[in-house]
Amino acid sequence: MKKLDWSDTRNLTMLMDFYELTMANGYMESGLEGISACFDMSIRRIPDGGGFAIMAGLEQVIENLKELRFKEKDIEFLRSKNLFSDKFLEYLRNFKFSCDVWAVPEGTPVFPNEPIVKVVGPIVEAQLLETLVLVLINHQSLIATKSNRIVRAAQGRAVMEFGSRRAHGADSAIYGARAAYIAGCVGTSCVLSSKMFGIPALGTMAHSWVQLFDTELDAFLAYARAFPSSCTLLVDTYDVLRSGIPNAIKAFEQEVVPRGFRPYAVRIDSGDIVQLSKKAREMLDEAGFEDCKIVASNSLDEYSIQEMLSKGACVDQFGVGERLITSASDSVFGGVYKLVAIKRDGEIIPKIKISETTGKINIPGVKELHRLYDNHTNEAVADIISLRGEEIDVTKPYEAYDVYEKDKKVVLKNFSTKKLLTPIFEKGKCVYDSPNIEEIKSYCRQQVDTLSNTIKSLKNPEHYPVYLSPGVWQLKNELFEEKKV
Amino acid sequence: MKKLDWSDTRNLTMLMDFYELTMANGYMESGLEGISACFDMSIRRIPDGGGFAIMAGLEQVIENLKELRFKEKDIEFLRSKNLFSDKFLEYLRNFKFSCDVWAVPEGTPVFPNEPIVKVVGPIVEAQLLETLVLVLINHQSLIATKSNRIVRAAQGRAVMEFGSRRAHGADSAIYGARAAYIAGCVGTSCVLSSKMFGIPALGTMAHSWVQLFDTELDAFLAYARAFPSSCTLLVDTYDVLRSGIPNAIKAFEQEVVPRGFRPYAVRIDSGDIVQLSKKAREMLDEAGFEDCKIVASNSLDEYSIQEMLSKGACVDQFGVGERLITSASDSVFGGVYKLVAIKRDGEIIPKIKISETTGKINIPGVKELHRLYDNHTNEAVADIISLRGEEIDVTKPYEAYDVYEKDKKVVLKNFSTKKLLTPIFEKGKCVYDSPNIEEIKSYCRQQVDTLSNTIKSLKNPEHYPVYLSPGVWQLKNELFEEKKV
Repeated sequence: MKKLDWSDTRNLTMLMDFYELTMANGYMESGLEGISACFDMSIRRIPDGGGFAIMAGLEQVIENLKELRFKEKDIEFLRSKNLFSDKFLEYLRNFKFSCDVWAVPEGTPVFPNEPIVKVVGPIVEAQLLETLVLVLINHQSLIATKSNRIVRAAQGRAVMEFGSRRAHGADSAIYGARAAYIAGCVGTSCVLSSKMFGIPALGTMAHSWVQLFDTELDAFLAYARAFPSSCTLLVDTYDVLRSGIPNAIKAFEQEVVPRGFRPYAVRIDSGDIVQLSKKAREMLDEAGFEDCKIVASNSLDEYSIQEMLSKGACVDQFGVGERLITSASDSVFGGVYKLVAIKRDGEIIPKIKISETTGKINIPGVKELHRLYDNHTNEAVADIISLRGEEIDVTKPYEAYDVYEKDKKVVLKNFSTKKLLTPIFEKGKCVYDSPNIEEIKSYCRQQVDTLSNTIKSLKNPEHYPVYLSPGVWQLKNELFEEKKV
Repeated sequence: MKKLDWSDTRNLTMLMDFYELTMANGYMESGLEGISACFDMSIRRIPDGGGFAIMAGLEQVIENLKELRFKEKDIEFLRSKNLFSDKFLEYLRNFKFSCDVWAVPEGTPVFPNEPIVKVVGPIVEAQLLETLVLVLINHQSLIATKSNRIVRAAQGRAVMEFGSRRAHGADSAIYGARAAYIAGCVGTSCVLSSKMFGIPALGTMAHSWVQLFDTELDAFLAYARAFPSSCTLLVDTYDVLRSGIPNAIKAFEQEVVPRGFRPYAVRIDSGDIVQLSKKAREMLDEAGFEDCKIVASNSLDEYSIQEMLSKGACVDQFGVGERLITSASDSVFGGVYKLVAIKRDGEIIPKIKISETTGKINIPGVKELHRLYDNHTNEAVADIISLRGEEIDVTKPYEAYDVYEKDKKVVLKNFSTKKLLTPIFEKGKCVYDSPNIEEIKSYCRQQVDTLSNTIKSLKNPEHYPVYLSPGVWQLKNELFEEKKV
C-alpha cells in the first residue's frame, strides 16, 4: 500500500457517536469494564435491490484504527460536558487499542446478515469503534456496489468516475473514487485520489474552455494543438450536430492528423444522447474517423446506460458523476454493528437483539463466514454462517438452515469452502498485509466472476443463498425463545 | 469562528478535476494566461422539488482557499503524467491565490439560476477552484436544505442529527452535522463535529447496552443510576410495550425519581411508531410520567415524520439519521461553476453556454444578486439578477424579466432591496469576518421566516420569482442570438 503523507489524513478517533462515550463511561461506572465483547458488522439489505454488495473501505479502517488516541484537547472537551467520570477520562487519556479484528477482504461480494467485520475486545473499547468502522465501510461499500452495477450496465465499455464536484464533501470524492476504481471503473477525474492511491487520472475539457475562445473552432484548434496525442473535444457547448461535430472534424483534420496522431474522442454532455451519438457516429465515420470514440456524460447511472445501449446509442465510454458518487438511486448502505456475544469470568454468553421490525433481529454468537464453491463449475453457490470452531466437512453432504424461515433446511454437496473473515488486528496490532489497489481491483473482478449471471442481474436478481450452520441455527432459536416476550 | 487544530484539516488544493489542470496548462500554452475570467456558481434545481435551497459550506471554502498551495510532491506527481509544460509546473510551484470572491452568506435561502458564488481572477487560477468550491458548497447546501425540510415537517419538535454512521465518509458526517445544525437541528450525535464547531452533542444508549446486561431491567437500572439527570432509555430491544416501557417505568421509579430527578425520555427505534408511541404515551401518563418525552428514530425523513404526525403519533423529538445525512430521497445538489465573462486587453466580454438541455443555458455577464422585500410585510417577494453597477431604483416601479420565458415582463413596486453577494476575498486576501455558527443558525431561521408559507410548503411549493434586470435580459438575448446555430 502506498504510504500517505501525514497531512493527507486526520486523526478520526473522535469521529464517534456521543452515546458510544456515555455507554462506555456507564460500563465503567457499572463495573462492567472487565467484560469482553464481540461485535459484528453486517448489512440488512443490498442497495438498489441488487443481488450482492461489494466490501470496501477496510484499508481506511486499518489506517484509522492504527492511529486511535485521544489528545489532551479531546479530554478537556469531554470533561466540559460534565457527564464523564474522572476514571473514564483517565482511561481515554491512556487509551491503547487492544482489540482483535477480523474482516472480509475488500472487493469481496457480500450479502445480508453476514458478519463482514468482527471486533472482539474489552467492551468499553469495542463499543467506541462502532461509528468509525461503520461510516468508512458503509461509504466505500456503497460506492463500490453502485459502481459495479454501472460497470455491468456498460457491457465492457469503459466507465470513468467523474463525480467529485457533486460528492458529499472531500472524503466522499476522494474515497468514493477509490471504491469506484476497485469495483471496475477505469479511473477518476479526482486528482487527489489519483495521487493518493495511484488511480489513473482522467478528463479533458469543460465548457469554459470552449467559451473562452471567440469561436468553438478556435477552442478546438487550440486544444488539439496543446494535446494532439489524446485529443478529446467537448462538442455540446452550442449545438452538437450543427456546430460541435463539424468543428471537431475540422480540428482533427488541421491539428491532429497532420501531426501523426489520431483523434481520441468527442464528448457529448447534454441532449438526447441516443440520437446525437448515432448521428455523430455517422458524421465521424464519413470524415474517416471511425476510430474516434464517443464519450457520453450527463447524470448517467446503470439505468440510463442500460436504456441508451438498448436503443442503440453509439457510445464507447461513459463519464459517470453525481449518480455514482452519491449512489443517487439508493444512497444508504445500512451496515450495522451489533453485540453478538460477551465473555464474563471466562464464560462466553451469546447475545441477541429482537425487534418489532423482523429485519432488525441479529444473529447471535462468535461466528465464521464460509463461501461454498461448486466442485465442477467453481461457481459460488452459497455462504454459511457458522459458529467459530464449528467445522464444515466437505466430504459429506452438509445440512444448513435458511436465515429467514426457521424450519427450512437444505442439503449441500460437492463443494469446497473458503473462510472469508481474515485476521486484521491481533490484540491491537495490525497483522494484515494489505493488498495494493490493483490487487484489490483484480480480486474484486475475479470474485464477482464466481457469481452466477442471475445474481449479477441488475433487475430482480436471484437471491444468493446464505445459510446458518446447525450450531448457529440452534443458538438463535434458543435465544429467541428465551428473550421473546 | 472557532480555530481548528491543523490536524483536524488537510490541504485540499489537489482536490480538483484533472481537466482543470489540463485546461489551465492549455490556457498557458495558448498564451491566454493574461485573460481575467468571471465564474458563477449557481444551482439548476432544488432537491426534493422544494421551494428553496439553503446556502452552506462557505466557511470551509474560505478555510481551504486560504491554504491553497502545491507541495513539491504534488508537482512531481503531475510531472509524472507527461502532459504538463515546465512553465505550467513552475507556475503551480509558485502558485499564490489572487482572485476576488463574492458569495451569498451561509444560511441564506437561494434559488435556481442565481449567482451564489462569484470568482473573478486570472483564468488559470479561477479555473482551478471549480471542483473545490463546488464540492464543499454542494455538500453542505444539500444537507442544510434537507435538514430544514425535516425540521419544518417536525412542526416545532426537536430534530436531532444522528446520521454519522451512514454518512459518505468522515467529511460527510462532520460537515453534514454542521449543515444540519445551521438549518435548524438542535444538535448532533457526532462527537468530532461537536468539538470542532461547538454544536451540542446528543445521544444516550444503543441496543448493545441493553443486550450486555442479563435483563432489560438491569440495563435500565444501571443506566438510570449512571445518568439520573438526563435519563433516556431505548425501549425496543425486545418488545416495546410488553417489556421496554414497563421496565423503563420501573427504572424511573427506582433510580431516577427517588434521587430528585424526572425521567427525560424513552426512545423507540423500530416497529409502527404511530401505534407504539400512542400506547407508550398512555402507559407513561398512567404511571405519572406525563413529562417523560418520547423520542422516535428509524430511517426517518420529512415524509415519514409528516405522515406520523398526521396520524397522531405521540412523539416529542425525532432522531434523524441516514435519510438526512445522505439526503436520501434526492442526494444530488447540482451546483455548477460556469464561465460568464472574460476581460481581455481591458475589455469585458460576457460569455454564454447554449445547450440542447434548456436548463443548462447559463446567464452571461458579471452580475449582482438582489433580494426584494415588501415594504409593508417585510416578506421576500422576488430576487433580481442584475449586471454589476446596474442599480435598482426603489422609489420607482421596476420592470424585470422572467428567467425562462423571454417575453414575460413584470412590474414590481413598494419594495426595499438587499444585495446578497458579499465580498469574501479581495485579490486573494480574505476580507470576510465570518459569523460564528450560532449567528449563522439564527440568520438562517430569520431568512427562512421572510419566505411565504407557500414557498415553504414541502409538497408542490409555489415558485419563488427570480427575475432578470433589463441589462441582463438584453445581454442574454443578444448573446443567444449570436451563438445559436
